[in-house]
Amino acid sequence: MGNSFGELFRITTFGESHGAGVGVVVDGCPPRMPLSEGDVQVELDRRRPGQSDVVTPRAEGDRVEFLSGVYGGRTLGTPIAMLVRNGDQRPGAYEELRDKFRPSHADFSYQEKFGVRDPNGGGRASARETLGRVAGGAVAARVLRLGAGVEICAYVESVQDVVAGELEAFPSRESVEASVVRCPDAVASARMVARIREARDCGDSVGGVVRCRVRGLRAGLGEPVFDRLGADLGKAVLSLPAAKGFEIGSGFAGTLLRGSAHNDAFEMREGRVRTVSNRSGGVQGGISNGEEVFFRVAFKPVATIALPQRTVDAHGREVVVAARGRHDPCVVPRVVPVVEAVAAVVLLDHWLRDWGQNHAFGF
Amino acid sequence: MGNSFGELFRITTFGESHGAGVGVVVDGCPPRMPLSEGDVQVELDRRRPGQSDVVTPRAEGDRVEFLSGVYGGRTLGTPIAMLVRNGDQRPGAYEELRDKFRPSHADFSYQEKFGVRDPNGGGRASARETLGRVAGGAVAARVLRLGAGVEICAYVESVQDVVAGELEAFPSRESVEASVVRCPDAVASARMVARIREARDCGDSVGGVVRCRVRGLRAGLGEPVFDRLGADLGKAVLSLPAAKGFEIGSGFAGTLLRGSAHNDAFEMREGRVRTVSNRSGGVQGGISNGEEVFFRVAFKPVATIALPQRTVDAHGREVVVAARGRHDPCVVPRVVPVVEAVAAVVLLDHWLRDWGQNHAFGF
Amino acid sequence: MGNSFGELFRITTFGESHGAGVGVVVDGCPPRMPLSEGDVQVELDRRRPGQSDVVTPRAEGDRVEFLSGVYGGRTLGTPIAMLVRNGDQRPGAYEELRDKFRPSHADFSYQEKFGVRDPNGGGRASARETLGRVAGGAVAARVLRLGAGVEICAYVESVQDVVAGELEAFPSRESVEASVVRCPDAVASARMVARIREARDCGDSVGGVVRCRVRGLRAGLGEPVFDRLGADLGKAVLSLPAAKGFEIGSGFAGTLLRGSAHNDAFEMREGRVRTVSNRSGGVQGGISNGEEVFFRVAFKPVATIALPQRTVDAHGREVVVAARGRHDPCVVPRVVPVVEAVAAVVLLDHWLRDWGQNHAFGF
Amino acid sequence: MGNSFGELFRITTFGESHGAGVGVVVDGCPPRMPLSEGDVQVELDRRRPGQSDVVTPRAEGDRVEFLSGVYGGRTLGTPIAMLVRNGDQRPGAYEELRDKFRPSHADFSYQEKFGVRDPNGGGRASARETLGRVAGGAVAARVLRLGAGVEICAYVESVQDVVAGELEAFPSRESVEASVVRCPDAVASARMVARIREARDCGDSVGGVVRCRVRGLRAGLGEPVFDRLGADLGKAVLSLPAAKGFEIGSGFAGTLLRGSAHNDAFEMREGRVRTVSNRSGGVQGGISNGEEVFFRVAFKPVATIALPQRTVDAHGREVVVAARGRHDPCVVPRVVPVVEAVAAVVLLDHWLRDWGQNHAFGF
Repeated sequence: MGNSFGELFRITTFGESHGAGVGVVVDGCPPRMPLSEGDVQVELDRRRPGQSDVVTPRAEGDRVEFLSGVYGGRTLGTPIAMLVRNGDQRPGAYEELRDKFRPSHADFSYQEKFGVRDPNGGGRASARETLGRVAGGAVAARVLRLGAGVEICAYVESVQDVVAGELEAFPSRESVEASVVRCPDAVASARMVARIREARDCGDSVGGVVRCRVRGLRAGLGEPVFDRLGADLGKAVLSLPAAKGFEIGSGFAGTLLRGSAHNDAFEMREGRVRTVSNRSGGVQGGISNGEEVFFRVAFKPVATIALPQRTVDAHGREVVVAARGRHDPCVVPRVVPVVEAVAAVVLLDHWLRDWGQNHAFGF
Repeated sequence: MGNSFGELFRITTFGESHGAGVGVVVDGCPPRMPLSEGDVQVELDRRRPGQSDVVTPRAEGDRVEFLSGVYGGRTLGTPIAMLVRNGDQRPGAYEELRDKFRPSHADFSYQEKFGVRDPNGGGRASARETLGRVAGGAVAARVLRLGAGVEICAYVESVQDVVAGELEAFPSRESVEASVVRCPDAVASARMVARIREARDCGDSVGGVVRCRVRGLRAGLGEPVFDRLGADLGKAVLSLPAAKGFEIGSGFAGTLLRGSAHNDAFEMREGRVRTVSNRSGGVQGGISNGEEVFFRVAFKPVATIALPQRTVDAHGREVVVAARGRHDPCVVPRVVPVVEAVAAVVLLDHWLRDWGQNHAFGF
Repeated sequence: MGNSFGELFRITTFGESHGAGVGVVVDGCPPRMPLSEGDVQVELDRRRPGQSDVVTPRAEGDRVEFLSGVYGGRTLGTPIAMLVRNGDQRPGAYEELRDKFRPSHADFSYQEKFGVRDPNGGGRASARETLGRVAGGAVAARVLRLGAGVEICAYVESVQDVVAGELEAFPSRESVEASVVRCPDAVASARMVARIREARDCGDSVGGVVRCRVRGLRAGLGEPVFDRLGADLGKAVLSLPAAKGFEIGSGFAGTLLRGSAHNDAFEMREGRVRTVSNRSGGVQGGISNGEEVFFRVAFKPVATIALPQRTVDAHGREVVVAARGRHDPCVVPRVVPVVEAVAAVVLLDHWLRDWGQNHAFGF
Repeated sequence: MGNSFGELFRITTFGESHGAGVGVVVDGCPPRMPLSEGDVQVELDRRRPGQSDVVTPRAEGDRVEFLSGVYGGRTLGTPIAMLVRNGDQRPGAYEELRDKFRPSHADFSYQEKFGVRDPNGGGRASARETLGRVAGGAVAARVLRLGAGVEICAYVESVQDVVAGELEAFPSRESVEASVVRCPDAVASARMVARIREARDCGDSVGGVVRCRVRGLRAGLGEPVFDRLGADLGKAVLSLPAAKGFEIGSGFAGTLLRGSAHNDAFEMREGRVRTVSNRSGGVQGGISNGEEVFFRVAFKPVATIALPQRTVDAHGREVVVAARGRHDPCVVPRVVPVVEAVAAVVLLDHWLRDWGQNHAFGF
């Protein structure tokens, strides 16, 4: 259970890391939107391992195939099933880990829950599952971009204690992609790369923070009580592997201000009601107010490290485990498109609640 | 929409601040559990205004009435509807605010979404809605406590920059209730009270952080992909009014550590698999691992302040607004039982997914 | 569980027959629609006992109270909670039935499921629960009528073997209400009344069939695969107490025709695509085609009868049971507004999926 | 939307008739159950065209491939994605139908809803979609059979006016499969075959009725109000292509009896509470009572016929259409495993609600 996300726009992901493949079924995509496999592939490529020396060098081809839902280059309004075959199946590579509970992985908790697990590469708990999210989110983001003028841009704000400068302007996709760590601040980017290499060379890993910004979102999206926009965005990113924290708008730092300093005064600007500041992060009472929406997500250092670690095995024996092979020393560069993807699912889902499935967009 | 939360244990809240009443329908409560109105009232009393001089002095009686679902002192397994009448209806008290968009409130975004709103006391956007959550959560917490030995305890960790000391032992309900701000660290508590009074006397407000801890939770709860325990807890508390941030386990601070320092090594302890440290916050791969679950929630300073503020009205005129009457200078003391309530809903919901509706507990 | 129905327009009912009250929370009602308690009361009055001598003479006042969701005579887009107090609480009246499993009632199956039940008047299993459905459906029907020109009309087509003549024209509400059994065929109506009295005088009961017709529904509503319009209408009415069968369009009789005789040819009529016949019942491939939607529902004879019946009690003893007091000898006259109500919920829910929550109607 | 069914055990189907493939994602399958592709294939083979001369002679290989969720021959508790490639893609075969609205098909209503459609073989509206349901249902039925001793058996009860004799004993799978029309009454079976051939030879089609019986189901399954077992079974089968009617227990015929004749008296039998008769169809108050559950489903004659028919095209021109190629003259023989499949999904889903996801069965 729990493999679906969204109500009117819903993604259902499937697949184990070393099974036949991973994928997603997208239900609720508005009909008549132009869509090709290439539109999705470009996002998968951003998530792909082997892009640079600061991510895992595993060579995953990761070609997406559409199984349904698109005809004559346009969406049909029916489920879009997308499949990525697993190419890198190395039976035996994980033999040593079959019985060992890797620290801060899901090995032990899966075993407790299910009484069975696929030990190869983490099975369902592998971050490879996020391929399905990226594919589904690519469709959502495209609907929002083409149909509603909404742009979503995430980037790396910090790696361990290396923090990028505050970005005034809305970053371009190009400025993010120009950095191998996906940090548009070139100086910070270089320091982040160094920090990641340093950890990698020690057989260790580091974490970091991703910021996500959304512009062009109309006021009025989000539901007042439980399905607040911030709560749904929070759930979306907190469900990503390694995510441990979420802030919208002023976040934890906002607790240090007094109300008079924190409140966003309204003013008339460009002929409409705007806020002077944006500590609300574009959401008030759970509903978008037409300002930029932004939030931050904390990702812990990758649990898989080459350094030897104490642990126990399924038989209760104390053992030592050490990752062999190829692993990300830092997850944040590759998680950027994943954050964008799940944010897109949330935003489109809320859009459809207010404006309807089949008529909200000009496709 | 969006007024329900949970799948197998589901609460649906209703009510505007100054309408006839607020309440909740609880669906999915296991049958045969002893339950009285008093069991719920005790939690509502903790959320009640007028408890001390650091919260709003409004005198809200807030008596809960059971409308259904309980017979002969036991739950029937049918919906438990609970109603709290609104006693403090002062028509006209909000006349001035009818057309003004209060800064950092939901006035403007509601108007954009619905094209209509109840201006009295915030209507549906009032924190009074959380009464229904507390009532529903009180039932969930009782099931967990009586049926599964799970204890949930939240408390105030900081008010603005006043931070309580790290608490080693699991706090008792008594130690939390002994403090008017619900901070079990007596020294910090006194400083927090002073900080809140200071802000109140300036016509201003402050925010803070609530920590919530859960012990006795078995391993294996939570769903691997989207409905991770941390994600669902995150959504639950991020849907509370004024919540702007959430951390589970090491949170944002965890991004500063290397993997080798962050990972929680497993060991055998007391005859079972335990972690040596608990930076995971009791959740690994989205699933509980049997350790204590803990998380933190950031609440911004209350938006309603006595100080005059710039804003605009529904006609686009720039105006000044200043709250009159009785308001909380700081929300965190009263939000403690609300955090516990929504956490209980999440935990019980996940419990029922694995163990079933009617047979999971020994009632 | 299972006390909610609908996705975007959702009703959640609560209440036992002899508890404090019964009611409903409506979530997803479009904002800005004029709505008063009287608009709902008129439908409750149609469901009310004591309307004539062919239904139960119990005097239930059944006044609805709005608890939330309406302000200044208009819906707010927030949950509309409606409560009907139970006036007729006669503790002890059901004492004899406390341990006896009444034949073809829910006593035994509830006991097996929950291990506990409220024996008074059937508790949650009482048809009194449908009050909440009628109240919620009245809101849905009003949205459809005022906002979309959709009319829903149900009526009694048969009582036992007394069958009304086929009705060519769409019946008016007046023609239905003119009959105490809600059969617009006056001749059949008189015979139905006689048939019901006959059964009543023998201490027995009879069943019947309700037909429901919908006009003005636009083409394109319904979801292709699982949430077909006919399937959702079927579930809605099959969830009513005593319902045992459902047909849409040609139904079971359609299985006797050949395809060439059954198919509905398309033609151009009044400038648009129409079907010549309507054996499809207005739904093709699960989606409305713009023709009249119609379906039939079979209701078994009421299980509660005055005649003595064999049964067993909770201790496994074979005993005799006989209903005392006031009961409906035939459910169909009073079930007519309930069928309309749940049909309205289905239709509005599907409307909102396609056209959105907040902007589909001209309110 | 609407491509998922079930709550705790949920199937999501995808695929167009002539796209890359059709399939299903099963979420919520209990872990540790032995499962192979062969276990699913055997059910697909029963649904397969070309089994006899009374069904379509199309040669569809229809081999299922597991993409996820099974490891080492056992279910993992993670989503089981299953894919069946479409082998029979004949581009151009449907060229003539591109713009014509076939009578009583979904062509017109899809066009109205989506504004676009895949004209090849009905696209998403093709009965080929039910492959996914059969695959998903095969998993559910296996859980019920191996884990709970529940047997589900459907068979053809009538083809047009040829009706099988009432079957006293629970039919064996073998007795059903021995008949090419899946009617265990050999005499009726022969007459049904003749009736279908007759229609086929005229270029016409016939409909029929499928009965489904379930034994071994424990008492207490089903939810009281909206998610009654009969209502959910009704929705499940009414969502099948060509289904127009549903009856549980006594159904429409039950409306002809008086209550005293219809009620199922309770008695003690074999040491437990049983009903003497079973007009309730094993469900009382929406909840199973431990008796056999049975229901009937009406399927209209297949809309696709070789005879020429009047219709209009997308340009509003009146045209004639006639099916070419290979089509079923009668759907009921092949729909038998589909009915069993969706019934299994409903029953398992309800089982899991009461007894939980991970511990309900002895796997």
